[in-house]
Formats: sequence, C-alpha cells, structure tokens
Amino acid sequence: MDVCIGLLGCGTVGAGVVELVRRRTDKIEALTGSRPVIRRILVRNPDKPRAVPLDKSLLTTRAEDILTDPEVRVVVETMGGIEPARQYVLAALRAGKHVVTANKDLMALHGTELLETAAEAGVDLMYEAAVGGAIPVIRPLQECLTANEISEIKGIVNGTTNYILSKMTETGADLGEVLREAQALGYAEADPSSDVDGLDAARKLVILATLAFHAPVRLDQVTVQGIRSITAADVAYARELGYVIKLLASGSCHQDKVVLQVQPTLVPKHHPLAHVDDAYNALFVRGDAAGNLMFYGRGAGSLPTASAVMGDVIEVLRGIGLPQVGVRGPACLRRVEVRPDLVPPRRYYIRMTVADRPGVFARIAGVFGDAEVSMETVVQRRGGRASAEVVIVTHDVPLHQLQRAVDQVALLESVEAVHNVLPLETDDEVSDR
Amino acid sequence: MDVCIGLLGCGTVGAGVVELVRRRTDKIEALTGSRPVIRRILVRNPDKPRAVPLDKSLLTTRAEDILTDPEVRVVVETMGGIEPARQYVLAALRAGKHVVTANKDLMALHGTELLETAAEAGVDLMYEAAVGGAIPVIRPLQECLTANEISEIKGIVNGTTNYILSKMTETGADLGEVLREAQALGYAEADPSSDVDGLDAARKLVILATLAFHAPVRLDQVTVQGIRSITAADVAYARELGYVIKLLASGSCHQDKVVLQVQPTLVPKHHPLAHVDDAYNALFVRGDAAGNLMFYGRGAGSLPTASAVMGDVIEVLRGIGLPQVGVRGPACLRRVEVRPDLVPPRRYYIRMTVADRPGVFARIAGVFGDAEVSMETVVQRRGGRASAEVVIVTHDVPLHQLQRAVDQVALLESVEAVHNVLPLETDDEVSDR
Repeated sequence: MDVCIGLLGCGTVGAGVVELVRRRTDKIEALTGSRPVIRRILVRNPDKPRAVPLDKSLLTTRAEDILTDPEVRVVVETMGGIEPARQYVLAALRAGKHVVTANKDLMALHGTELLETAAEAGVDLMYEAAVGGAIPVIRPLQECLTANEISEIKGIVNGTTNYILSKMTETGADLGEVLREAQALGYAEADPSSDVDGLDAARKLVILATLAFHAPVRLDQVTVQGIRSITAADVAYARELGYVIKLLASGSCHQDKVVLQVQPTLVPKHHPLAHVDDAYNALFVRGDAAGNLMFYGRGAGSLPTASAVMGDVIEVLRGIGLPQVGVRGPACLRRVEVRPDLVPPRRYYIRMTVADRPGVFARIAGVFGDAEVSMETVVQRRGGRASAEVVIVTHDVPLHQLQRAVDQVALLESVEAVHNVLPLETDDEVSDR
Repeated sequence: MDVCIGLLGCGTVGAGVVELVRRRTDKIEALTGSRPVIRRILVRNPDKPRAVPLDKSLLTTRAEDILTDPEVRVVVETMGGIEPARQYVLAALRAGKHVVTANKDLMALHGTELLETAAEAGVDLMYEAAVGGAIPVIRPLQECLTANEISEIKGIVNGTTNYILSKMTETGADLGEVLREAQALGYAEADPSSDVDGLDAARKLVILATLAFHAPVRLDQVTVQGIRSITAADVAYARELGYVIKLLASGSCHQDKVVLQVQPTLVPKHHPLAHVDDAYNALFVRGDAAGNLMFYGRGAGSLPTASAVMGDVIEVLRGIGLPQVGVRGPACLRRVEVRPDLVPPRRYYIRMTVADRPGVFARIAGVFGDAEVSMETVVQRRGGRASAEVVIVTHDVPLHQLQRAVDQVALLESVEAVHNVLPLETDDEVSDR
C-alpha cells in the first residue's frame, strides 16, 4: 500500500529525507507493509538548486497543498523555526495526519501544546531528530528506560560549540578565529548566537528533561552560560590540569527538585565525554535501575538527521491502520520545582588577571580562606607588563559560597579581572567506581 | 485496569523484575493505563530465600499454573537456558500471551522460531534484555535505525571477560588468578567456559547481527576465539604499544557478504571502547545514513537487566488492547552469505618465544618478508634461561597471508612457541576523521 508523505522544507535535512526515502523504499515496504511516497514538498523558492534531483512537479510554495491533501497521511517537518512551522504542524495534526518533526526549537517551546493536540486527534507526533541528530535518545527515554526513575541527564548536544571547542583544544587558537573558520566551512551560522550562547543546547535540554523527569520544564528555567568567554588561555590551563573544556547541558532531579544547566565545564581527559569531538554528540543518563548509560553519535548533518526522521516515519508506517492514540507524548506525570540554587557542591576553575605585586596572592587566598573555599591547585603565570594570571581550582564548594568569594576577590584593588568561573566534572560519572 | 504478569524464574533478574514492578506500579499505570500485577512466579524451590520479600502464595513449581491461566496476559521469562524455557515460551505465545524474555541463549538459538510463533499468534515477543543488559540496543536497531543500511556492529558484550581483562590490565595479574577472584566474587560462574571461551559473546552477536543485517545468521557461522590464551605478558606488551586488550564481538556486512567474529583485540588506549571497564558493555553501530553510533551501559546485574525487561513490559502494556501483530520480529529481508575469509586486511600483534641465539630474529624477519607481511614494530625481550620473547606488530595484511607467515615461523627450529595472534583496532573507528 502506498502511503503519501508531505514534506515541509527541503533544506539540508529535508534533502536527506528525500534521499533516504529513495534508497529505502523497498526495505520500508518489506518491513511495514507500507510504501512511502513523497507526494509534495513545500519550499520557498522552487527554482533554487537542491542537494537531490527533484521533479519540479513535487514542489509547491503553498502549505495547504500538503495540509489539506487527504492523500497525505504523514507530514514531515524539516523547515525549522517557530512560525509558520507551528501553525503547519497544528493544522496537520488537526487534519488527522501523523507528524514527524526535526524541529528542536518548536518542540522545546511548544512541545506540550503539540503533543496534546496530537493526542486529541489520535495521531502520532514524533521528534527523535530534534535532539542528538542520528542518536536514538528520545525513543530510549520514552520507551526502553521508562521503568527507571531518572536522576540525571548530561551531555554534549550542540555540534557547533563542540566543533569550536574541539578546534580550540586541537590548535590552541582563540574562539574568534575558530568561529570565523567554522562560519566559512558552514559549520556555524552567520549569526552564531543561538549556538555560541548556549540557547540551542538549552532548548534540547528542555526536551530531554521533560521526557526524562516526566515533568514539564521551560526554557526560562535553564541556567545558561555560553562559550563566548572561553579563551585559548582557559583551554591551555585546562589541558595543563588534565582537562578539556566542553559545553555540557545537564539536568538533575531529586525528590521533584530539578536543576537545569548549560555551561562550559572542565571534563577530565579520561572521561568519555572528553573524547566526543567535532560534530559528535553524546548523552549520559543515570537511572535508578539501569545505572549509567551513554549514547553517542553524529549530532547533525543531512543524512544523520534524516536517519532519525525516517526511523520515526517507519514507526508511524508500522502503526498506520492501528488505532494509535498519541501515547508517545511527554507523558508528564508530575510538577517539579526547578531550583537552580540546588547545584550540589563541586569543584570550580577560576581564572583571573591580577597586579604582579608582592602580597596579591596572599590577599586572594585570604578572601577564599575567609569564605571557607579551599583551594586544590593554584597556577600563577606572568601576564602582561605589570600583571600576572592566576588560575585556581577549588575543592568541592557550594555555588553560593564560591560566588561570594569570587565577588569579594573581584573587588580587591589588585585584581584586574575575573575571567571565567567554570565547574569541573568528576571522573566517577561513568563507571560507578 | 490490572494486567496480570506471570514470571518464569526468580533468580537475579527475576528478583529485579519483582522489585521494579513494585517500585513503579503507579508510574506504569499512569503511562500505559494498565496496572502491572505479578500473579504467579515459577520457581524450582519455594523454600529458597529470595532477594526480595515474596508472599509464598505467589510461588508455584508448576509451569502450567502460569501458562494455562487465562488471567495472565504477559509472561516474563528470566529462567535462562534452552529447555524447558523454549517449551514454556512457545506454550505462552500459542496461548496468546505476550512474552518478554531476557534469555540470550534462547533467542540466539531459537529466535526465528519463537518470533514466527509470536507473529502467528498475534502477540509480542520482546527481548531487549537479552543483549547489553540495561543498554537499549535491540529497540534502536529494530526501530530508530531501520532507515539505515548497517555495515558494521562491534562491541564489548560479555561482562565477565571484560571484568577479567580489565582486572588483568589494572593489576598485571594472570588470567587464572583473576578468574578465581571473579568466581569468588560471583562475577564468573563455577564453569566459566561459556564466557571465557567467547560463546556467550557469540550468541549475543548472532542476535545483534540478525537484527542489524536483516538476515538470519547462525551461531556456527561465528568465528570464535576466547580469552584463555591471553597472559599477563600480552596485556603488558599491549600497554607498552599503547593498547588495551578487549574481547570484541564484531559483524560486518557488505553486499550481502557477512563476517562474524568474536576475538580478543588490541584496542588503542584513546578509543572509547578502551575505557569500557569492568561489567560495562558497549556497542558500536555504523549505518550508511546515521554514521557511527555508540551505546554504553551496564551489561548485567539484577536491576539493570530488569530495567530492560520492564521497558519491554511497559511497551507491551501500552499496546494491550491494540491489535498488535508481532511486527517486532527480526524481519529478515534477505539471505546473506557468511564469509569468514572476507576479513579485511588489518594490523596484527604476534607474541612468540624464541631461542636466544644470534640470527634467530633475522630468520623470522626473512619468513615475514618472503610472505610479504611487513612489520611495523618489533619488541624483543630476554625470556627464560636461553630464550627470548618477541612481539611483532604488522602493517595491514590479509588474514590468510598473515596466517601463512605465522605457520611457517612456527615451524622454525629456533621458534619455541607462537603464543598469540591478535588483531589491532584502528583509531578511526569512532570519529570519521
């Protein structure tokens, strides 16, 4: 039986979907009994050259050609952005069409509304491709791990910043330089703020945390720190200390109290997350029954993302004919309190520039001592003409206590600037030892 | 709605299932609409102390109390072994009961028969727990990655041998010593052959390869080499060369030609598989669209395995009431030719003991040169009184060509013994660089 698919958008991911449907039509029919046929593709400009050869008659600039076509059973949304994607997805769901989307922004901001609409309409809304590219993370959280109480998720979920940080680590170059290179190569957008400032990672964290903790959380509940402040010096100091800097998105939940953070973190070089380079993503999950799990793979790209989209489409095709009732929603079971203040005590890295004079370090150490922040490692280096650079790694300390010490240190007359305050990951995250 | 579960076996995994059902009854009901109730548990000895407190009235020694009870909708099989588990599972499926099993031996040897029976009966047969403990690997292969042509799977799938090799690497001890320790701790069976000789890993490989390649493969088609021959010397030389020894199960498929191997392999110390220690498992998958993926987590244990079992049970409960039709079978789409001879050229490690006399190494090198096997690294050490130990790492070489050279070297009068011939993993397995 032919099942008609309407495709919204034909950019990088959409072209990958077209390509995969072509490669796997027979296999998908053999597996599901349904033969996927791409019936219509919504594009802005039908004359634009595409990454895959396309019959012009497939293209349309009018969304209603897809959304009101009764032949279209499945709508695949790869256009990105909030509007008009949201309106189109709502219209498709209300018209009784199953929807598969790769749109993380949409799912992070409007996931609950869309999943409720899908449930009311008795259709599927699936979004494996919205987080982690090719890596199965949504389905394992929704299905395989549901018998667990998940206490923690943590990972590298933004490819652009991971590429930038990997290159900085590899070459010793500064962020601006690597960013310009990444933009030239198409790995970073002309306006890179959404990636570089951590917003993209925060959106993915919202999707993951909602599923993992079975509770609705919002983007404005994520404490976000991007990578703009990270310099070649930070990367070099981290390396000297045995670490690499990664942008980690993390969520923890204990007794309905949730902490959600996106921040550059020093990861020990033997930690598996330290080896997640370039455009790769990885996600750790800690469950009370399963223990620690990690999922790793390509976080973006045309075919990797299309692989996830088509995995969802195949699942929809398997279910077509069966009375599906939108059981795959976030299935929020509880309200939680998001408590950024509940970050557990941990180690921190602090880099500052100070006046190169006798007694300066003693004053800094005095402030830390008075605040009961104990220091594990101190590195001091000649900086500019009359200045020195000081890097301090603390022992475990509650964030508010550290913050108080850092604020006081920053007020010292001999301290020119506190550049970065970054947490350190411990080595025991992966194994239970 | 209460849904009654019959449990076959109440050992380590079965007790974990009882525990998880108790912890998560409310959550499962909220998610699926069905409230799981353990109605009966088949045990050999009702008087044996159990890891979970159990009402004696739940226990039975007669399988028919579960298999013919019309109230039992789902049978969970955690007894292990082939018979009578196979008969019980067949009877349950034919009686229209969904079955969730953690039994790798059963699925490796009789998976096709059982899945066909399930499809005929219109019920689910699920087995996520049969491979990789808590790690979702079956479901991702069956669902999320089905749009891919998978060319390779490779992983650490046996916890016992991984524990032994990890300890050997950590302590420098010999296999026998570590094995006795592992047995004392309950990490290895009294008769450890199934683990140590690679058979358990081979069975898991059969299950994974059948799913990944959509083709039925058999246990006798796997080339199996266990870890008995690995000595403290091999571990030390590997370390010196920058490697750790891991028992890898691997399957590759190119143009319907399949290679299936279980063998100890030198893994570069920066490779993520090198950091999979103790009872952890990991699986790499390479798909034409998804690229490289890795799944990592606890490969065994009571609650980790029960986590996978209950993930399946929850999926069955979600589907109860819907006309499921056993669509989750291996879905074999083709026949493949299993060709152990098609191992691609790769690097090998060879350790031998030779007479400590002038000219010996020249003769060995001559044999290798004549066979056109080129050497990358040679380490020579004083061995016993009049003997020396030689370790050779070759450049990439076809297996048959290497084998010919090694056979000839073994015939040299001055060569006392060739101890081990092990392949080396390359560093490019994970990233695409």
